[in-house]
Amino acid sequence: MTITDNPTVTTVSGGGKLYEYPASQAAMERALKVVPSGIYGHQGPSEGCYVPVSSFPLFSKTASGTRFIDADGNEFIDYMCGYGPNVLGYKDADVDAAAAAQAKLEDVVTIPSTTMVDFAELLVDQVASADWAFFAKNGGDTTTLAIMTARAATKRKRIVFIAGYYHGVAPWTQKLDYPGVLEEDVTNNIIIPWNDPVAFEKVLNAYSGEIAAFISTPYMHGNFLDNVLPAPGYWQAIRKLCDKHGVVLIMDDVRAGFRLDLAGSDHHFGFEADLICFCKAIANGYNVSALLGKAALKDVVSSITYTGSYWMSAVPFAAGIATQTKLRELNAPARFAELGTRLTTGLVGAAADQGLHLIASGEPALFYLRLADDDSLMLHQEWVAQMMRRGIFLTSHHNHFINASLTEADVDLTIEIAHEAFGVVKAAHPELG
Amino acid sequence: MTITDNPTVTTVSGGGKLYEYPASQAAMERALKVVPSGIYGHQGPSEGCYVPVSSFPLFSKTASGTRFIDADGNEFIDYMCGYGPNVLGYKDADVDAAAAAQAKLEDVVTIPSTTMVDFAELLVDQVASADWAFFAKNGGDTTTLAIMTARAATKRKRIVFIAGYYHGVAPWTQKLDYPGVLEEDVTNNIIIPWNDPVAFEKVLNAYSGEIAAFISTPYMHGNFLDNVLPAPGYWQAIRKLCDKHGVVLIMDDVRAGFRLDLAGSDHHFGFEADLICFCKAIANGYNVSALLGKAALKDVVSSITYTGSYWMSAVPFAAGIATQTKLRELNAPARFAELGTRLTTGLVGAAADQGLHLIASGEPALFYLRLADDDSLMLHQEWVAQMMRRGIFLTSHHNHFINASLTEADVDLTIEIAHEAFGVVKAAHPELG
Repeated sequence: MTITDNPTVTTVSGGGKLYEYPASQAAMERALKVVPSGIYGHQGPSEGCYVPVSSFPLFSKTASGTRFIDADGNEFIDYMCGYGPNVLGYKDADVDAAAAAQAKLEDVVTIPSTTMVDFAELLVDQVASADWAFFAKNGGDTTTLAIMTARAATKRKRIVFIAGYYHGVAPWTQKLDYPGVLEEDVTNNIIIPWNDPVAFEKVLNAYSGEIAAFISTPYMHGNFLDNVLPAPGYWQAIRKLCDKHGVVLIMDDVRAGFRLDLAGSDHHFGFEADLICFCKAIANGYNVSALLGKAALKDVVSSITYTGSYWMSAVPFAAGIATQTKLRELNAPARFAELGTRLTTGLVGAAADQGLHLIASGEPALFYLRLADDDSLMLHQEWVAQMMRRGIFLTSHHNHFINASLTEADVDLTIEIAHEAFGVVKAAHPELG
Repeated sequence: MTITDNPTVTTVSGGGKLYEYPASQAAMERALKVVPSGIYGHQGPSEGCYVPVSSFPLFSKTASGTRFIDADGNEFIDYMCGYGPNVLGYKDADVDAAAAAQAKLEDVVTIPSTTMVDFAELLVDQVASADWAFFAKNGGDTTTLAIMTARAATKRKRIVFIAGYYHGVAPWTQKLDYPGVLEEDVTNNIIIPWNDPVAFEKVLNAYSGEIAAFISTPYMHGNFLDNVLPAPGYWQAIRKLCDKHGVVLIMDDVRAGFRLDLAGSDHHFGFEADLICFCKAIANGYNVSALLGKAALKDVVSSITYTGSYWMSAVPFAAGIATQTKLRELNAPARFAELGTRLTTGLVGAAADQGLHLIASGEPALFYLRLADDDSLMLHQEWVAQMMRRGIFLTSHHNHFINASLTEADVDLTIEIAHEAFGVVKAAHPELG
């Protein structure tokens, strides 16, 4: 089984049989015996509301570029990109060559490779707000280190979040009604609405001298909701309030990082964060994350007890250097915006041709889709199922991702398949007019 | 620069020049500009009390088997094994071939590879107490999931720890006086002495119905202290008390796992934990960790919100399968015990020949060393420095690790060098008699 090199996805649209998934389902039977939920995270069948379970593949076999082939041999154009890490294309030859060259030398050793220093230098040079870099494995490792740093720097406890936030799975960033979470874990969390500097100022005054940090993604790319960009002047107002009240401004750029602006999403929106968290697109899937920050916080972050078994793994550093270098050469964020705009414009048009109302929101590089003709998201899920069974991998609850190996031909094929899929949905719902 | 294939370490003992580290020190100058502490964790120069800074290398270039070569070209027999992950030997050919074969197919993709299921099946079959496996990236990801699972299962808050514990770097497992840690993070922690079931029972009675979990490593392998094995009947008493009081027994096997017993360190000590945490030796350095547990907790762990960007990365699963398979074929734990015993017996003898008192404690596979002729650990550090500058990498505060590529010849060479190093220490301290 090989992935086709040319963008000629084995689409089943145009009269072919719709995809079926017996091999995926058989593998899930095995998985359910030995893995909690079978598959955890977004794709688990226990989260059946997230994706049209019977219409989507559960296990993959091989991946290349913007495509993967599932356990049944079905080929997909994948707009989820591993939930972010696939930024250049699966199995990018340049990144894999850099990783293989490093692996010939060493990976996890008792003392680190200077490749760690090379990668830190590259990121500090590239990311506008950063004077230093600290590496870990999960995005959540960096958000936790960020709030610990803010607390240590300010000697304050409280953290301000934006409603609908997601900053990983550590207990402090979950909700009180989630299993295993204590009141003590979340008692210092204060939640305000997005795009509301007035609400932030009220909180700063109400808890004067008690707020350690403000943590937020660069824009609202929450799940199950249309994504919302910052209002003009929003980030500048937040930055000013943080400065006035001595609050550490933490940018969680785990999801959007390196897709909007290689200098950081704070740079994209015209301000500088104090701490910025990266993961996903940092090394094209090689396992590494990074907290970057301003010089004023370097001694504080140095004072915190924070380390992990694989945090000086050299292969992901080499992959990260190659990834960022290639993203710069490609001027990738401009390309992502262009392809994302072409795609979402085409999809919205294809829906309109069937009298349906598709809303595309957020940044085009991380577009979020919602069929607005019902409020339950179930109609949207039906459309996603029709796309999926024709070789286009989308979700019904989460933003998508563009990668640099996607082509105009892929996008146009996707739009063509969308026309057919919207037609099927419309035919099944004559009540929609 | 290549690592010698035969066990002929380029020892400088016997009249050669002692190792020097100008290239490491130059790289550290660069690192200090862009990385907090330059190097974080055990090897950072800010933790100068841990290792004899001026006598140890800071950066490595290449590694193979039981050896690495530092930035200056000095070759070491490495008894730290990357602080655990190197269990078969750096760049083990079988593990690397399995990883490369998987990498040719896919690594981090939107939906997982069935390699995840294969690895879960292998571990559930191999680890005596386990009915399921959940994969993550850090050892700390698994200890955090374990306490969340215990809290969700029992609807209780408090966790009992052993004095001197280390279960990762999440705030709940740090100490109140550490930077960035809040009282709320640690307020539910109760600390009792090692090897003291009576103390545990007192706590269970004092906080009746409030204890969610007991978390411990299989024996006391804490830092800066002689390591202590369980007293006969200790673990059986703990198991019985947990059962009586409905407390979840969590084994943190991150450090010792797969070095004492491939069926788990609980099996090694004749009992069954409810949850068992693995990392380090699970995949010979490829980045993966795992929480394994009993069937009764499977639904609870499934209910917890817990996921990460790279947690379904397929290459580390393939490496893990190859690592565990080879450890079984080699009957590796027996070999580790044999080599560890040969080494520690030889080192203790070499010290005694100079009238010095070296204490080797803990399990031979993870031996801890302390020169008992002074209480400050500084004499021990002097000896470590002499070993280091002769090509033997040890530490002065942490247990060591044996890997399967170590040979009797390596061990005997280490003992020979130790004779010389103890002689130098003794000559510098005529007061020691």
